[in-house]
Amino acid sequence: MNAPLAPPPLLHARKQAILAALRGLLPPHCLLSEQEDTRPYECDGLTAYRQLPLAVALPETEAQLMALLKACSALRVPIVPRGAGTGLSGGAMPIADGIVISTAKMSRILALDPLARTARVQPGVRNLAISEAAAAHALYYAPDPSSQIACTIAGNVAENSGGVHCLKYGLTLHNVMRVRMVSMDGEIIELGGAALDAPGLDLLAVFIGSEGMLGVVTEVTVRLIPKPPLARVIMASFDDVITGGDAVAEVIAAGIIPAGLEMMDRTSVRMVEPFVKAGYDTNAAAILLCESDGMPEEVEEEIERMSEVLLRAGASAIAVSGSEAERMRFWSGRKNAFPAAGRLSPDYYCMDGTIPRKRLAEVLQGIAAMEQTYGLRCANVFHAGDGNLHPLIMFDANQPGEFDRAERFGEAILALCVEVGGTITGEHGVGIEKIDAMCGQFTVNEVAAFIGVKRAFDGAFLLNPNKAIPTLDRCAAYGKRQARGGVFKFVKQVGA
Amino acid sequence: MNAPLAPPPLLHARKQAILAALRGLLPPHCLLSEQEDTRPYECDGLTAYRQLPLAVALPETEAQLMALLKACSALRVPIVPRGAGTGLSGGAMPIADGIVISTAKMSRILALDPLARTARVQPGVRNLAISEAAAAHALYYAPDPSSQIACTIAGNVAENSGGVHCLKYGLTLHNVMRVRMVSMDGEIIELGGAALDAPGLDLLAVFIGSEGMLGVVTEVTVRLIPKPPLARVIMASFDDVITGGDAVAEVIAAGIIPAGLEMMDRTSVRMVEPFVKAGYDTNAAAILLCESDGMPEEVEEEIERMSEVLLRAGASAIAVSGSEAERMRFWSGRKNAFPAAGRLSPDYYCMDGTIPRKRLAEVLQGIAAMEQTYGLRCANVFHAGDGNLHPLIMFDANQPGEFDRAERFGEAILALCVEVGGTITGEHGVGIEKIDAMCGQFTVNEVAAFIGVKRAFDGAFLLNPNKAIPTLDRCAAYGKRQARGGVFKFVKQVGA
Repeated sequence: MNAPLAPPPLLHARKQAILAALRGLLPPHCLLSEQEDTRPYECDGLTAYRQLPLAVALPETEAQLMALLKACSALRVPIVPRGAGTGLSGGAMPIADGIVISTAKMSRILALDPLARTARVQPGVRNLAISEAAAAHALYYAPDPSSQIACTIAGNVAENSGGVHCLKYGLTLHNVMRVRMVSMDGEIIELGGAALDAPGLDLLAVFIGSEGMLGVVTEVTVRLIPKPPLARVIMASFDDVITGGDAVAEVIAAGIIPAGLEMMDRTSVRMVEPFVKAGYDTNAAAILLCESDGMPEEVEEEIERMSEVLLRAGASAIAVSGSEAERMRFWSGRKNAFPAAGRLSPDYYCMDGTIPRKRLAEVLQGIAAMEQTYGLRCANVFHAGDGNLHPLIMFDANQPGEFDRAERFGEAILALCVEVGGTITGEHGVGIEKIDAMCGQFTVNEVAAFIGVKRAFDGAFLLNPNKAIPTLDRCAAYGKRQARGGVFKFVKQVGA
Repeated sequence: MNAPLAPPPLLHARKQAILAALRGLLPPHCLLSEQEDTRPYECDGLTAYRQLPLAVALPETEAQLMALLKACSALRVPIVPRGAGTGLSGGAMPIADGIVISTAKMSRILALDPLARTARVQPGVRNLAISEAAAAHALYYAPDPSSQIACTIAGNVAENSGGVHCLKYGLTLHNVMRVRMVSMDGEIIELGGAALDAPGLDLLAVFIGSEGMLGVVTEVTVRLIPKPPLARVIMASFDDVITGGDAVAEVIAAGIIPAGLEMMDRTSVRMVEPFVKAGYDTNAAAILLCESDGMPEEVEEEIERMSEVLLRAGASAIAVSGSEAERMRFWSGRKNAFPAAGRLSPDYYCMDGTIPRKRLAEVLQGIAAMEQTYGLRCANVFHAGDGNLHPLIMFDANQPGEFDRAERFGEAILALCVEVGGTITGEHGVGIEKIDAMCGQFTVNEVAAFIGVKRAFDGAFLLNPNKAIPTLDRCAAYGKRQARGGVFKFVKQVGA
């Protein structure tokens, strides 16, 4: 939410030298350097941050990618890797004197083994395309971020993407077996493998969620799982959010792991319903969507148990999807919450924090109080099962002061998340948006450990610089601002 | 399996200076330096490798541990962290001019939250003690290595320990939420957290399984799960190992995730049965143990489905445990395979490799051929569900040449594991035993990445040096030996 950054002065001669070097490595249609061509790459889903890059490279082969990184390393040109650009934290925002490397042209499914239940795919394969290819074998790839029609597997790897089913089926980390990547010095490194526990350090886990800072993906081997024959979802209404929050805890405490467990507050429900007609209870203070999937008998039994638990926990009404069409309709409201906010308000700011499930009521009350403080409305959708909260702050950037108030409102929400023992991002990543908040989340020793690991992969700090991990200088400056009374208090206690 | 290492020359004065420094930091009963006191620490479960340390420190508090590491860092004294010493790869073997730090005295359960289903424990808490403490709330800690009566949670973290139930319930990595540790320079670093996906790099995953090379654990927060009300196990007999191996694949292909899925070949069964009287079919070429746990109705249904699949896959006989006592009896044979080998043979060498499940038959045939080549018998027990093979090579160290043949037999098995796409260790770790095999498993670029990450945590390489990750020099020497015809071929192909 900064103004567009002015391109820093880069000597024309150096720019020409870099382009000349890259032209020798890529076919002409794989290198974009005119503004009209690079414009579509100036931002990702965090559209408030924009920057034109020096050039955009779209390699078609691993060999081209290796040559590209070797050349950029030699010339000290910073790199921003990019998937489909659907990220929400500015992780793929270009830098003026750097190259964007898009892996969009490397989009083939290389192998699909229904027996081993794996698929080996190139980085630019779309998330949903994997499940589409696997459907012939009644298999699918589980993580389902809302952007799954567009987002690519390498982007999912960079962000450790989840989705509404991650409580039961896990994040990208839990569904990827191996990553083949090119390091900043142009070497191939393979991480992970087929074994449950690979020897050596678990660098696959470090790589997944590293936001393009450790290498550029050239192949991903994903796990496929059998498509459950049946799924049904319960919509439960609650007269207040505290009861709803407690019901979430009760479901988990009953030993049930729902395939999805989502909560929406009244503001969200009323925002979505006229637009989507999902059949939501607009009189409820909050609704819960609680899904079961599996073999039909298991689903029926689990739906029954969930219903009992929810009613015992104080649900005022319950509806169960009677058909696949109705199930899709129940979900459509949740999945369209962000577009609905866009219809209702000229601008909205989607936050992404996590909290311990049991602190939900407290955090929602805190956010309600902040609505008064900042004079802005906020709708809350919540991946309740895994404690990932998405407050949508609505504002009008054309009204003087609203933009700033929205930004401060967002910072205050994240501060509250950390204060109750949560984190500053659940699934959208740090990118450039939350780089300062990292200084509040982690101690200096912890940030230093991150930097050390980053250095192990990219000693020259050329890969996606100034994203995801703050420098220690930045944290020191942040600490000084907080000492003068910034909104985001350094609340983490060692041992808390 | 080297001869005990002779202590390298360490100046008496330096030794005295180090001891003097440490005496100022610990109560007298927490620092052992006399041979009679340090002798119990000269090896871990890999008893063939022994070395007396300079001293053994047993801190009682985190503050003592921090001071200890700060002092060792300043004095450049290498450290070997140690849990219960049950490890099987020599990861806790002392070094002559270094200090063993045992966290055995830090053995309190600090908090147990039945609602959040977590326990926060000190490093020296025994694995089983966590489940015992959680039993009052019908909860338990899932990973169950065979040594669970003795092994500590910090040792489990160091080795990423599993157990016979890890196919369904995961390894240590999947059951630990947070680790608090002291870095080599004596600073506190907390890794992980309650959220499904923490911001920043996933250093918790790197730390788990890092074999004491990145820090010394002071607290672990583990996930507890509800104890399933019922568990039953099927014992299935097979007339040949190939059919047995295929049956494993069929169970998984049917979408079943058994709570345990173990295979034993005829040699193992006949070795165990007279000793344990588990009721095993000694006429079978192989037996499978296939467990289901959960709600009673679910278990009955799953046992029925498993039985159908196993019979269809060619099981010659099937028995299902009819009581908890019978279930425990079925498992007792599997769990006592190693002690049984000790009864049958003066010495045995327990290997630990992984293979893709579908290559099992081929690997077992390969091992059978090796029995002829090396003139030694080998019993095979197999965590079939996750492809983790434990061949037990039997030999008599008093017979000239048998020790060497056993060692070469073991190397050949690991080479075969890597050749079919597996790994050199499933769960016992690399330690000192498999440090050379790491050079065969990984490319130079991959080993360099491991070293880079190690350096990020411990730039002076004082924490458990010469374990788990080979130096690039070592890999170069290894490569030269292989070029001259060593048994362990460098078989990994980039892209294979």
